[in-house]
Amino acid sequence: MKILLINGPNLQLLGVREPGIYGADTLPAIVAHLRETAAELGCELIDFQSNHEGDIIDLIGSAKEKGVDGIVMNPAAYTHTSVAIRDALAAVALPAVEVHLSNIHAREEFRSHSLTAPKCIGVVAGFGADSYEWALRALVAHLNRKPVLV
Amino acid sequence: MKILLINGPNLQLLGVREPGIYGADTLPAIVAHLRETAAELGCELIDFQSNHEGDIIDLIGSAKEKGVDGIVMNPAAYTHTSVAIRDALAAVALPAVEVHLSNIHAREEFRSHSLTAPKCIGVVAGFGADSYEWALRALVAHLNRKPVLV
Amino acid sequence: MKILLINGPNLQLLGVREPGIYGADTLPAIVAHLRETAAELGCELIDFQSNHEGDIIDLIGSAKEKGVDGIVMNPAAYTHTSVAIRDALAAVALPAVEVHLSNIHAREEFRSHSLTAPKCIGVVAGFGADSYEWALRALVAHLNRKPVLV
Amino acid sequence: MKILLINGPNLQLLGVREPGIYGADTLPAIVAHLRETAAELGCELIDFQSNHEGDIIDLIGSAKEKGVDGIVMNPAAYTHTSVAIRDALAAVALPAVEVHLSNIHAREEFRSHSLTAPKCIGVVAGFGADSYEWALRALVAHLNRKPVLV
Amino acid sequence: MKILLINGPNLQLLGVREPGIYGADTLPAIVAHLRETAAELGCELIDFQSNHEGDIIDLIGSAKEKGVDGIVMNPAAYTHTSVAIRDALAAVALPAVEVHLSNIHAREEFRSHSLTAPKCIGVVAGFGADSYEWALRALVAHLNRKPVLV
Amino acid sequence: MKILLINGPNLQLLGVREPGIYGADTLPAIVAHLRETAAELGCELIDFQSNHEGDIIDLIGSAKEKGVDGIVMNPAAYTHTSVAIRDALAAVALPAVEVHLSNIHAREEFRSHSLTAPKCIGVVAGFGADSYEWALRALVAHLNRKPVLV
Amino acid sequence: MKILLINGPNLQLLGVREPGIYGADTLPAIVAHLRETAAELGCELIDFQSNHEGDIIDLIGSAKEKGVDGIVMNPAAYTHTSVAIRDALAAVALPAVEVHLSNIHAREEFRSHSLTAPKCIGVVAGFGADSYEWALRALVAHLNRKPVLV
Amino acid sequence: MKILLINGPNLQLLGVREPGIYGADTLPAIVAHLRETAAELGCELIDFQSNHEGDIIDLIGSAKEKGVDGIVMNPAAYTHTSVAIRDALAAVALPAVEVHLSNIHAREEFRSHSLTAPKCIGVVAGFGADSYEWALRALVAHLNRKPVLV
Amino acid sequence: MKILLINGPNLQLLGVREPGIYGADTLPAIVAHLRETAAELGCELIDFQSNHEGDIIDLIGSAKEKGVDGIVMNPAAYTHTSVAIRDALAAVALPAVEVHLSNIHAREEFRSHSLTAPKCIGVVAGFGADSYEWALRALVAHLNRKPVLV
Amino acid sequence: MKILLINGPNLQLLGVREPGIYGADTLPAIVAHLRETAAELGCELIDFQSNHEGDIIDLIGSAKEKGVDGIVMNPAAYTHTSVAIRDALAAVALPAVEVHLSNIHAREEFRSHSLTAPKCIGVVAGFGADSYEWALRALVAHLNRKPVLV
Amino acid sequence: MKILLINGPNLQLLGVREPGIYGADTLPAIVAHLRETAAELGCELIDFQSNHEGDIIDLIGSAKEKGVDGIVMNPAAYTHTSVAIRDALAAVALPAVEVHLSNIHAREEFRSHSLTAPKCIGVVAGFGADSYEWALRALVAHLNRKPVLV
Amino acid sequence: MKILLINGPNLQLLGVREPGIYGADTLPAIVAHLRETAAELGCELIDFQSNHEGDIIDLIGSAKEKGVDGIVMNPAAYTHTSVAIRDALAAVALPAVEVHLSNIHAREEFRSHSLTAPKCIGVVAGFGADSYEWALRALVAHLNRKPVLV
Repeated sequence: MKILLINGPNLQLLGVREPGIYGADTLPAIVAHLRETAAELGCELIDFQSNHEGDIIDLIGSAKEKGVDGIVMNPAAYTHTSVAIRDALAAVALPAVEVHLSNIHAREEFRSHSLTAPKCIGVVAGFGADSYEWALRALVAHLNRKPVLV
Repeated sequence: MKILLINGPNLQLLGVREPGIYGADTLPAIVAHLRETAAELGCELIDFQSNHEGDIIDLIGSAKEKGVDGIVMNPAAYTHTSVAIRDALAAVALPAVEVHLSNIHAREEFRSHSLTAPKCIGVVAGFGADSYEWALRALVAHLNRKPVLV
Repeated sequence: MKILLINGPNLQLLGVREPGIYGADTLPAIVAHLRETAAELGCELIDFQSNHEGDIIDLIGSAKEKGVDGIVMNPAAYTHTSVAIRDALAAVALPAVEVHLSNIHAREEFRSHSLTAPKCIGVVAGFGADSYEWALRALVAHLNRKPVLV
Repeated sequence: MKILLINGPNLQLLGVREPGIYGADTLPAIVAHLRETAAELGCELIDFQSNHEGDIIDLIGSAKEKGVDGIVMNPAAYTHTSVAIRDALAAVALPAVEVHLSNIHAREEFRSHSLTAPKCIGVVAGFGADSYEWALRALVAHLNRKPVLV
Repeated sequence: MKILLINGPNLQLLGVREPGIYGADTLPAIVAHLRETAAELGCELIDFQSNHEGDIIDLIGSAKEKGVDGIVMNPAAYTHTSVAIRDALAAVALPAVEVHLSNIHAREEFRSHSLTAPKCIGVVAGFGADSYEWALRALVAHLNRKPVLV
Repeated sequence: MKILLINGPNLQLLGVREPGIYGADTLPAIVAHLRETAAELGCELIDFQSNHEGDIIDLIGSAKEKGVDGIVMNPAAYTHTSVAIRDALAAVALPAVEVHLSNIHAREEFRSHSLTAPKCIGVVAGFGADSYEWALRALVAHLNRKPVLV
Repeated sequence: MKILLINGPNLQLLGVREPGIYGADTLPAIVAHLRETAAELGCELIDFQSNHEGDIIDLIGSAKEKGVDGIVMNPAAYTHTSVAIRDALAAVALPAVEVHLSNIHAREEFRSHSLTAPKCIGVVAGFGADSYEWALRALVAHLNRKPVLV
Repeated sequence: MKILLINGPNLQLLGVREPGIYGADTLPAIVAHLRETAAELGCELIDFQSNHEGDIIDLIGSAKEKGVDGIVMNPAAYTHTSVAIRDALAAVALPAVEVHLSNIHAREEFRSHSLTAPKCIGVVAGFGADSYEWALRALVAHLNRKPVLV
Repeated sequence: MKILLINGPNLQLLGVREPGIYGADTLPAIVAHLRETAAELGCELIDFQSNHEGDIIDLIGSAKEKGVDGIVMNPAAYTHTSVAIRDALAAVALPAVEVHLSNIHAREEFRSHSLTAPKCIGVVAGFGADSYEWALRALVAHLNRKPVLV
Repeated sequence: MKILLINGPNLQLLGVREPGIYGADTLPAIVAHLRETAAELGCELIDFQSNHEGDIIDLIGSAKEKGVDGIVMNPAAYTHTSVAIRDALAAVALPAVEVHLSNIHAREEFRSHSLTAPKCIGVVAGFGADSYEWALRALVAHLNRKPVLV
Repeated sequence: MKILLINGPNLQLLGVREPGIYGADTLPAIVAHLRETAAELGCELIDFQSNHEGDIIDLIGSAKEKGVDGIVMNPAAYTHTSVAIRDALAAVALPAVEVHLSNIHAREEFRSHSLTAPKCIGVVAGFGADSYEWALRALVAHLNRKPVLV
Repeated sequence: MKILLINGPNLQLLGVREPGIYGADTLPAIVAHLRETAAELGCELIDFQSNHEGDIIDLIGSAKEKGVDGIVMNPAAYTHTSVAIRDALAAVALPAVEVHLSNIHAREEFRSHSLTAPKCIGVVAGFGADSYEWALRALVAHLNRKPVLV
């Protein structure tokens, strides 16, 4: 099983950028940890970060032909402004989980509205770097069609 | 460690109520499963469901004196209308995780706004009954001050 | 055929409360009259009034197991604020008719918007105590699958 | 007693137009049935349909000199756009009941707002062709100053 | 000089319709008086009333070929809803004065916004039947290119 | 194949009305040209212009019984205010194309919103009198179920 | 009869300030002309201009004890921002007419809303300096309780 | 003279809940103090706290038959969401004073709007526990029809 | 202790101005009474009324150098429009209490929003002239750092 | 004559992406067909697709120096979010036609507003892949300064 | 060259008022420094501060006859509320530069909107007392018609 | 000292693009001039222009490791749409000054709102190419911690 991990704008700065809000873990550390979880879950993780909306759309658009089964995505700032990423998700119709490090409901008003979430199956937000962990586990459970609860 | 599980209005109907949206698991089945997870995580689960906003506020208000360490809560419809539950969460200042069975961003416009989430540490939404599972695990990790990622 | 009659907050004060707006009939008098109509229509009326949103949700949630066939409901002030009663109606999926004593379109702006009506089959408003009469007759006709007009 | 029945735009198409929403009865069938009800209630029904806002205003404006005692009106699309029909109702000051075949609260957002209802005594909506029946009975009861409930 | 006097919906009821708001003068009386003023000012008055938006548009559209020099118009309810009358005024590009019997700023919120006034040279409102008198005098002064003030 | 051409309010003034915005062609000239195109495309053009919202609704309502196969319509000002024309289009369920001479997105804010377009298959706007030409060709291609592109 | 003429901010610049919008007449010239009209109408004109909101409120507040019978006022920019002038008008309860040189409905959106007009009997706008003339005549006719029209 | 003191949701936590905002006094201490003031003013205090909207409505609805003369109420979070408590106040038509510990105008935007205050005679907010003291004294002065100022 | 009493626009008219809303007491009477209360509380009252926003700002700006300890202010209409008075209060950072004679929540919508209250410690509204009395007492208690409740 | 064809985000997926909305034609097929039409019209087609807002802006910015005479553009999702593409169109001041496969007025509310259309000469929407065909023909006719209609 | 320096409400308190936001420089110090810059630039500085909107309007209105060539203005709180100062700037049509000590985009929402800026040539904000310096230099460069850049 | 100069979308067209709004200077000319100013101020200028939001975010994200001390940025159209650039500025936490050639408050409504300015220290707008000059000087003064004014 192949999982595509997409990180949006400014997330290359994790660990440096406003640690009070986003935590002290760097993106490579988070990804390394997620690879272990992915291995444990028997799936492959394709890791990608870009500050370019177009790169993210390119990637989502080509996900199916790359054999991707599901997407874990932190669209960061593009969560609130990108109709194009929303459309890309709708176009490929792959199960996706939206992730946020911080609790988007507890910050500026404009951060509580997500343009991309309606095209995802679910959202995990507010647990810092752990948000990715739970999102990955939830996505894989969903893909296995064996939900945790019987 | 004591975890309080709060389920809001109409959730006693789970498994019966609009299964296309909310899934086929009944609330007792979900709770039974969560008890197992809680046991695995070494914590006790106090289970509560009410259709009464006042009951939920009573309970949150008395959580500290009952020795509760954290709250997993699906406020259901009160998510969108209850300033009083929001105030109760702020008053007790216990770590809480908001849970939704469905993806609230993909339904009626008014369901994408949460009055209660700003007083929680995080939100898990859209994974059906599994949402509770991930929320519980995320809360316990948070309480252990040993986040998944080192 | 069993019809559940639900009256929301402050309606226990009918006949006393602002009679210029709500009329001079008391709630027991209205219910007594409706019982006669119900008898004439060959159905049983289960009468309920509460100022508690939670009580109303409890009742709607248990309506099916009580053998209720349809609901006549005046949600009063909860018409404009209760997502939870709306969700309860959607959950039980019983035919319901919303009733208002006064013409809600001719009062404060916020009274013209109903959160509960979208989950009812219809609305009768503005005829004072008679609104209940017409709502009951309309509901029973609907349930008989023999609409007035052939 | 003379009752004026006004049907607004596109209602000449009833039975043909979107039967899933508006039902399968034609307007002549509905009117014929209402005439019987009117006869039973001892009153005369003046029947009128027009797609022209101006025609409806003309008619309402001349209602008093035609000896009309009350109005049953389905303003259809003009419900949401016609200040002029609203003003006509206010000008003649005759008791009027607004009728809708469908539940206007359960459709597009703009259909839940009525410009004309504030100048009516009440509203009946959502019962298909039966809505007219209940509206007529409610209006006549009102005019008889003998409300159903004593 | 030819002046076109246009009266919109429900104004045929003047003297009868809500005299507390609109005054006790009938439309024929107002028109008769205005004819005298017109004669005094050396101009001809073409009088027109209709409840039909389309009639008013027809008339404005043909005003130039009828030799009309200016328009005094009380669009009544269409003031607030008719883009089409606004477009007709823009199309013929004749000087027009908008008249209101009542002070539109002191009534329902929606009456304070005029769609038609931006295509008129000015507005006179609030003086009851006298509003027409001042509007006519103001229009003729404007047309004489001899403003009152030198 | 029969195509109904509907022109709304003030379009009888084309060539005269604000030529900077609407162009110098008269409506008869436009219609004559469209007849040639229709002939070339092997279809009959039924031509209609009215300033009356009701006339347009009447016509659309009777289009099917007149054997009309599709509609080319410039609703002009009614584009922005007529729920009734929108409902008429939905009622007859004939393929319709909305036409605008000017680019409605580049004018007053209120002109960028169309109440009627959601019930059409498409929109052509901004090409002056040519807008009709392209709309007619696009409609006929659609009706031939042989879209231009194979 | 004493009439108070109040001119608000920037009107001392009339004749100089944006003559394309406000005309070429100076304020002294307008006042001089109005004095002649006042004389003709048998009343005295008290003339006042200030750029200070407080001065205007002071003056209105003392109008009754100065024997003022009515007010002609061009509040200029304060039309759109001054609740205090509105309250002053309500407090003295003298008949007032609001005047605007330009057509306030045809300029920036915020100029079409008047905070002061609801406490006046009427409004005259768009006739340049002549607006004062018609406002004065309308006010005196109102005060004479002998409206133009019998 | 009987005064009903109503405290809404979460106020049982006073002294514990966010003392930076709400102060360090507990509710029993506040009530004890108010009893002394009540005694000094020659009136009886009926003390009530509930987190249940329905309980508060029940109580207000029965206030008259309990001989209550006036109400001091801190509706807390229900201030901003409860149409039902507003309706209860209107129904019993007893003089009520709304109390807030904090200055509701200086907190989140949604706290500056009160649904209940329009049905009270006045509001006292921002003085911490003292707000109750001043509200009680103001209410009793009002009821004595002997206002402080002669 | 020195208390500055500020009364805003139109309050010089108290006793005359709309007594149904504002009461029959004149401002000098109110001030005289407050002086007695001030004396009783052992503090000096500096009395000031102006219709000029600028005067009020001047005064607040100089309050500290005049030895003022606290402010009781009825900003009247400026409550809803003056950012400058709000800024003045923030600049001097003296404890202030906002007073309103009427219940501002029960009047026009725009009166329920206060620009100045967020920079005050509290608000007292709706008790007529008594509002000043309670505001003064509440302010002095606050300044004495000896709140009523121990 | 050189025509630049720009296709925005996700359009590389045409034929695959939600064929119910966007049709079954692939982008290469559409472009191939358009090349034939272009040849027929005697003009050259420069074909471009990108998911990158910046690429589209680069291209538009360089269009004049590449000898481009006009632009056919489907901005897709960027229609609703890109002020930068709007500014690019305004900067090069080349005639452009906006194209949409689907009828943007019949989908989510946010799709009915176009930021880019105000800087185009016209819009063609709703005819699937044919929309490009008509847009190209309309643009070339415009550029030939020989509109269809003489 | 004569430059008018206008400082609005509360700026006389600079150095005292909220130094965290507005800095520690007093207004006289800022003005003294600006005089030196003005001297260096070969122009005269006319210095003015007032808390009175009317004074500022008076001054702007008389600026031309005083030989003023340009205006540097910090309207402070009036930035957000004064249509009258905006109109004064438009009336005198002198080049003006708006200055703010703080970054108005980074404070309360209402401070990001300026009513006066649209009638200025430019804005300098956020540099504390230096904002005046840059504004003066920018204005003089503009007036010299010799912009910095050749 | 190193200053990063960032120019956003379409600014490569300066001198060509709408010179009435943006002036006749080309971007290379502006940069050349700024280099001279930078030299005079003893600092190095790193020059960058891109139409790609992602490029700008990349650059800002790497500014610290490149030794940049401060940023002068004209985000152009991205000012109004880019949460991601805003987040980048917050992430690097370098002093930045926002520049606009035109007065953004005097153009379309949507241009008066800046998403990026709240994360800058200040804004300079409206002085054409000179805006950069003043922004650079203001930034350097800020960085020298030696503000112009002592």
